[in-house]
Amino acid sequence: MLYLIGLGLSDETDITVKGLEAVKKCARVYLEAYTSILLVDKTVLESYYGREVIIADRDMVESASDDILEDAQNVDVAFLVVGDPFGFSATTHTDLVLRARSLNIPISTIPNASIMSAIGATGLQLYNFGQTVSMVFFTENWKPASFYDRIRENRNIGLHTLVLLDIKVKEQTMENMARGRKIYEPPRYMTVGQCASQMLEIEELKTENGEGGVYNEESLCVGAARVGCKDEKFVSGTLKQLCDADEQLGGPLHSLVLLGRRTHELEHDYVREFAVDKGVWDTIWKRDYEGKV
Amino acid sequence: MLYLIGLGLSDETDITVKGLEAVKKCARVYLEAYTSILLVDKTVLESYYGREVIIADRDMVESASDDILEDAQNVDVAFLVVGDPFGFSATTHTDLVLRARSLNIPISTIPNASIMSAIGATGLQLYNFGQTVSMVFFTENWKPASFYDRIRENRNIGLHTLVLLDIKVKEQTMENMARGRKIYEPPRYMTVGQCASQMLEIEELKTENGEGGVYNEESLCVGAARVGCKDEKFVSGTLKQLCDADEQLGGPLHSLVLLGRRTHELEHDYVREFAVDKGVWDTIWKRDYEGKV
Repeated sequence: MLYLIGLGLSDETDITVKGLEAVKKCARVYLEAYTSILLVDKTVLESYYGREVIIADRDMVESASDDILEDAQNVDVAFLVVGDPFGFSATTHTDLVLRARSLNIPISTIPNASIMSAIGATGLQLYNFGQTVSMVFFTENWKPASFYDRIRENRNIGLHTLVLLDIKVKEQTMENMARGRKIYEPPRYMTVGQCASQMLEIEELKTENGEGGVYNEESLCVGAARVGCKDEKFVSGTLKQLCDADEQLGGPLHSLVLLGRRTHELEHDYVREFAVDKGVWDTIWKRDYEGKV
Repeated sequence: MLYLIGLGLSDETDITVKGLEAVKKCARVYLEAYTSILLVDKTVLESYYGREVIIADRDMVESASDDILEDAQNVDVAFLVVGDPFGFSATTHTDLVLRARSLNIPISTIPNASIMSAIGATGLQLYNFGQTVSMVFFTENWKPASFYDRIRENRNIGLHTLVLLDIKVKEQTMENMARGRKIYEPPRYMTVGQCASQMLEIEELKTENGEGGVYNEESLCVGAARVGCKDEKFVSGTLKQLCDADEQLGGPLHSLVLLGRRTHELEHDYVREFAVDKGVWDTIWKRDYEGKV
């Protein structure tokens, strides 16, 4: 049996009871560790499960899936995924399941919390969210903007957008890659501040091209850090304000929600509590959001 | 402390380890039982937790929230929610949290799986979903169609729509209500077949008014039953085919996904497996979905 087990969002105790029972009886345990991270170390998981945990990086999942699936017709294999197994990193997981199907390996999925629903803890109603997008780290020469068109689509129909932020693990420098040296850079996690800045940067580029007008410095949004953890933290304000909110938010992982105009009064009351500046929040809310449909 | 604890989607073992530890130490335990249901009985939960479980119906949560929150400054109170605490039934939960805030009661949220991300188990990519909608039971004289406009918005930009289906618990007949008799009808859960039929019915009504054209009998969709449970079941096909798929799908809870044209090849491979008729599926996919952006 191949078990796809969600680990939830925070630490080792966020696994479900059902998931823990399954992982404890597995012959091999893999942890998908390139699309998200738990906030605890692998060794903590190993002692909690009483099992060795094999880190599965992108290479392994994409090119060596047969190693992961080896003999899973006869023994139990666990593939652990931070959040939900069919959350936002699902493409490669779907591939793994298709491969398992073709090998006649039975599959069992054990769901868990995903940022996609946990983001409701901001107080924003999930019914008012459009499609979710991802934002990657811009470089000098590479500022992909496909996310921007999707945000525009949500914005046009008045919906909130959840923006998931890039993480970079097991990155090589150009030089190390060129020389074939398997030396990896420390992991990097995009912050709300970086995301808000990139959002304003792309807005400016688009405006120069006459395709702008989605969000501006005064658009309201909510930054979220460590959602689902004991020390989860929300900061709400304008995009401009959130460019400088990283200190308040603290460590990774971060996400950002851009507000649509289709809002509920309860959303205002709830999110206002997290405002950098309640006066600014109220003024802009009244002007651009309240009562809009 | 007020604990808002997600129970996940299936049985008593879908609670997280963290959630179980919290509920076991609470002085009072409430179960929100009007927006969704677990597939096990209250008594199973009680013996699993070693705690009495108080069923909180809509009346109690909306009008007697101060009873729920009583003395929660000093003792621990658990408010259990099927799925995730900030999932789709969040309005009343948000209200409860606002009330707790105003009483200076500390709040702790323990997230869990929600249908919103677990629906990824269909093989459809969560990135390709638009806003989620709910469909209620139509009556002779009441066929609310606000969901239809939202589905149209998703459809226009090529996105899938997750349709959550009505459940009716603690309903009274008009007669019992008029006579003030607290006699309740057995619970009702909308099936995929009912939802697909209502979708085609509203499509016909809208077409008569010249506002139709969102989905038709040949539109592809996926019916889902008991997502996250051991016996979860998916059936894919046309809206017309899914009108008659209830037997294949089995008992509650059901959900339906209407496909948008913006699809990924992997989605086809994965979902095809569940097709009522793979030939029909392939033909319509090729004609209306493949390669569309």
